[in-house]
Amino acid sequence: MINRLIAKIQQTHAPIVVGLDPMLSYIPEHVLEKSFKEFGETLEGAADAIWQFNRAIVDATCDLIPAVKPQIAMYEQFGIPGLEVFERTVSYCQEKGLIVIGDIKRGDIGSTSAAYATGHIGTVSVGGNAFAPFHEDFVTVNPYLGTDGVKPFVDVCREEKKGLFILVKTSNPSSGEFQDRQIEGRPLYEWVGEKVAQWGADCMGDSYSYVGAVVGATYPEMGKALRRIMPKSYILVPGYGAQGGQGKDLVHFFNEDGLGAIVNSSRGIIAAYKQEQYASYGAEHFAEASRAAVEAMIADIDSALKEAK
Amino acid sequence: MINRLIAKIQQTHAPIVVGLDPMLSYIPEHVLEKSFKEFGETLEGAADAIWQFNRAIVDATCDLIPAVKPQIAMYEQFGIPGLEVFERTVSYCQEKGLIVIGDIKRGDIGSTSAAYATGHIGTVSVGGNAFAPFHEDFVTVNPYLGTDGVKPFVDVCREEKKGLFILVKTSNPSSGEFQDRQIEGRPLYEWVGEKVAQWGADCMGDSYSYVGAVVGATYPEMGKALRRIMPKSYILVPGYGAQGGQGKDLVHFFNEDGLGAIVNSSRGIIAAYKQEQYASYGAEHFAEASRAAVEAMIADIDSALKEAK
Repeated sequence: MINRLIAKIQQTHAPIVVGLDPMLSYIPEHVLEKSFKEFGETLEGAADAIWQFNRAIVDATCDLIPAVKPQIAMYEQFGIPGLEVFERTVSYCQEKGLIVIGDIKRGDIGSTSAAYATGHIGTVSVGGNAFAPFHEDFVTVNPYLGTDGVKPFVDVCREEKKGLFILVKTSNPSSGEFQDRQIEGRPLYEWVGEKVAQWGADCMGDSYSYVGAVVGATYPEMGKALRRIMPKSYILVPGYGAQGGQGKDLVHFFNEDGLGAIVNSSRGIIAAYKQEQYASYGAEHFAEASRAAVEAMIADIDSALKEAK
Repeated sequence: MINRLIAKIQQTHAPIVVGLDPMLSYIPEHVLEKSFKEFGETLEGAADAIWQFNRAIVDATCDLIPAVKPQIAMYEQFGIPGLEVFERTVSYCQEKGLIVIGDIKRGDIGSTSAAYATGHIGTVSVGGNAFAPFHEDFVTVNPYLGTDGVKPFVDVCREEKKGLFILVKTSNPSSGEFQDRQIEGRPLYEWVGEKVAQWGADCMGDSYSYVGAVVGATYPEMGKALRRIMPKSYILVPGYGAQGGQGKDLVHFFNEDGLGAIVNSSRGIIAAYKQEQYASYGAEHFAEASRAAVEAMIADIDSALKEAK
């Protein structure tokens, strides 16, 4: 799957991923109204509005981008109907040729991590049949429990040719509270980064590992160090745009081959029509505003990478 | 909710929780056959078998115990039908008067953690209506992202009078890989434990905080240290039984008031009929075997606590 991701990035010239993290407050009134009219002000109504919103944005951007990253929490909060739309979104994006990174941040003891891996990137056996319940292409994983919590994901990954992004240094303001603590003279995130490189070593695609890492755009200097520690790991970089990261912060997340990083923007793309810059599109044309925001993001990163050369 | 949990523990004289972590391999043939006959060898069939299995065990044990802990991964691996049965299990246990600890180990950046908290222990607004999608009483939370990843759970907790157990020192063999690393002369898990005590300080029930911790039974010496660091935090102790923990390992997880800890056993209870000790019950009477295993566990912990006095 990492080979396919890289091929898609090269084909689109866009090392970016659109975060499909819909909040109801991002969804234009006319979309909400239509869904509520059909399903009521219910979990089903909210889920339908999310689905309509996602589909329009995917339709408007899928030729420009290699991948999407739905954040499962935004669906899970609407219970079963929300999770049904999560799965429907995964399917729809895959039909459109996009690679889907399920932002699930799961992680548990061995047998439990195995169940998560099975449900999200693997297949589960029931009697003589096998099912792939959520069938994402990549998932994000929390490393706090150590190797035996991560290994089951790696195993499923290798078997199914899927991919992982392990949390190393997250983009949020208090990520440093534990992740930056010094251990034998080096921060915890570097120790985690080293493990990511190890976990990924026997799980290689053509030039990069199936096992990647999450490192926030909001910490460019740490990205630079981690790039060296995990040379064969793709880095998923959240925190661009609404969280404060900019193109120029991103150059050190990439390798000299121009690969090695994929940058996520969520709110900045899917709620673009709410920004002054794209206000002229109006709520009616929210999906076109998202397309314009994708184009601007690609140009920003492209020019930052060119300048850095 | 912590007050209710303590009252239930005192009423049952049983500081234990039954882990409803069903794997298909635990479910007796006759239960599987019946579900597969009705729903086919499908996700629905698997989910129905889990539901029948859970219900029988809950019916057979609910008068003896204060709480259950369904592990959501075991449901999530069967996709939407699995998650429907997770929710149905939560509801059924609550109807039976049990407190439900959702073992979800979620944790993300602020707004995303807020969505998880809303979906699992809070209420989500849709237009003029509010829904509680999964409505557990407690959930487990992963602290790797630091305060702003945990705080939204604490906020919902306070508002809804629910509870949390934050992962501090997990029961698995490689939990030490990151959690035991020394930072300024003390292991990471102690620093996390200190944060748990802080997060819980402004979120107090009558004698204990709404914010508890997870500390594995497999590390009794660390339990002893953490008991002192978090005197007002209830400790959820996994790893008893199948993972190797015994009654005598548990005494230091408790405070001198005889409270402060609740011990989980999953496989040891729900798959008791597969153990030599309870084999005479036979697969037909798996739920009675679970009841016997609960009684033995209560007696084991009770005698260990009495001996320690």
